Amino acid sequence: MYRPEIKVLDCTIRDGGLMNEWQFDKAMVKEVFHGLAQAGLDYVELGYRADKKMFSPDEFGAWRFCDEEALREVAYECDTKVSVMCDVGRTDYDTILPSDESIVKLYRIATYVKDIDKAIHLGRHIKDLGYELSINIMAVSHALEPDLDEVLDQLAATDFDMVYLVDSFGYFFSEQIHYLADKYRAKLPGKELGIHCHNQQQLAFANTIEGIIKNINYVDGSIYGIGRAAGNCPLELLLGFLKNPKFDIRPVLNLVEKYFIELKKELRWGYEIPYAITGMLNKHPRAAMAFMKGVHGSTFSEFYDELLNVNDV
Amino acid sequence: MYRPEIKVLDCTIRDGGLMNEWQFDKAMVKEVFHGLAQAGLDYVELGYRADKKMFSPDEFGAWRFCDEEALREVAYECDTKVSVMCDVGRTDYDTILPSDESIVKLYRIATYVKDIDKAIHLGRHIKDLGYELSINIMAVSHALEPDLDEVLDQLAATDFDMVYLVDSFGYFFSEQIHYLADKYRAKLPGKELGIHCHNQQQLAFANTIEGIIKNINYVDGSIYGIGRAAGNCPLELLLGFLKNPKFDIRPVLNLVEKYFIELKKELRWGYEIPYAITGMLNKHPRAAMAFMKGVHGSTFSEFYDELLNVNDV
Repeated sequence: MYRPEIKVLDCTIRDGGLMNEWQFDKAMVKEVFHGLAQAGLDYVELGYRADKKMFSPDEFGAWRFCDEEALREVAYECDTKVSVMCDVGRTDYDTILPSDESIVKLYRIATYVKDIDKAIHLGRHIKDLGYELSINIMAVSHALEPDLDEVLDQLAATDFDMVYLVDSFGYFFSEQIHYLADKYRAKLPGKELGIHCHNQQQLAFANTIEGIIKNINYVDGSIYGIGRAAGNCPLELLLGFLKNPKFDIRPVLNLVEKYFIELKKELRWGYEIPYAITGMLNKHPRAAMAFMKGVHGSTFSEFYDELLNVNDV
Repeated sequence: MYRPEIKVLDCTIRDGGLMNEWQFDKAMVKEVFHGLAQAGLDYVELGYRADKKMFSPDEFGAWRFCDEEALREVAYECDTKVSVMCDVGRTDYDTILPSDESIVKLYRIATYVKDIDKAIHLGRHIKDLGYELSINIMAVSHALEPDLDEVLDQLAATDFDMVYLVDSFGYFFSEQIHYLADKYRAKLPGKELGIHCHNQQQLAFANTIEGIIKNINYVDGSIYGIGRAAGNCPLELLLGFLKNPKFDIRPVLNLVEKYFIELKKELRWGYEIPYAITGMLNKHPRAAMAFMKGVHGSTFSEFYDELLNVNDV
């Protein structure tokens, strides 16, 4: 698959940090950024910009906060742009510098459908500071259709650059990706669309391909699939699939070999039965993550039955 | 997804045996068959019927040969039918009993495009003995289109029951599955179609879903995805996806928990970078399997470059 408009965003440190409280050391993150720049990535997302009044730097690593100085220690100006994510309600507006004073080029705001007004408020602030801006609507597999429609209509009226289709729970398969991609496209003329998939059912790469087939141009991957729970679309598979000559898979393979094989054993993202169960039942993976810490003490079948019987999410 | 015509075939022991020379002990295989019968599987494939003049029972486990007595020690007559696979050129015709003397209901013949005449010859013999018969055309990602067309035309002229679309190298994505499913359907009116996928690029489940969407009714899975190299479509995901009320995922989850988590650590099927590389480059996984035994001594990137430069397959 080759389409010059396709942009690949790596979210290794940002989404992977959900598995280790962003405790990646700076030397490693520096190598990751450099390798991804060599691989021809369009964007590298280095973490969240979380409010230090809400989250303590004693508990969380540097990539939970992405201070300008920390970013400049690991990244440099090049064709690969630095991205940072903000959660609605967890961002201190005053910590965001004007874009000409920052190495960050793209901010992505992660929001639930219910928080869209806050997301748009924050987005206007960031956009006015001169950044590219994306809105990533999480957990749409739990959204009511008229609510999602309204959100998309609101976003259509903004000057934000991109809107991401996000399968937070790894629940969707191809037909649902097609349906939503068509909806987002119809509702958001002129905006770029992105796709961010989770791998609970081993469908993150497949669903990303389906997004590409449906003309979504911004696609997320992470090295060796690192990310919350079963993780994300493995970047190495995505680069193997894309034929755009600017991409080189080798630096990614080298990073997998040097860091991520071992890290996966420790952090346990990837295919595991508890994640698969939350994915097929369209549930948040937090129950699976708790189960895997062993505090649960029941069997896979019991876990399945418990989740079947849980109506809240 | 619910369609009453869908039949699920488990190939845990047969394809999984490619990773351990079929050295599964009988007590375990008996539990596997029973659990799969409880899960509502339509077929369970218990191994190959290999010629003992070509393969020594000293080197290979019982499921390489599937003697009638061995099968009857682990399986029993019920709604779940026993299947056995034959490789073209590795089968002793005289060891196949008339169907009314055997617990086997289905034979599946694995063939390359080039061996189709031998496969049809063997198939006639087996069909005449009263069995259901499937032809599984392997490695079609290496087949020339006119050759494949001719094979399908030859099969259309037989009374064989099913033809399987097989992605031996885990190379295909959805568009190729759609293309081939349409071709098989057009060329084989009146025959059932099946799909058997490999998971080198984490696409086995996704491609199986695409086969189902294209009205393929016979779908293969294996417990926890066990199978050669990256393995097959994980049966637990398939049963989670299918809504046919006859299926119950719980016995499969129990088998995963009791046997397959540990077995995976030992045998190393599932997502691994060397398998992914052979998949994305449309190569036989044997090179990856050798690489993973450590005799190779090079890096992932070097392995990638070597395979890129190898034109034979």
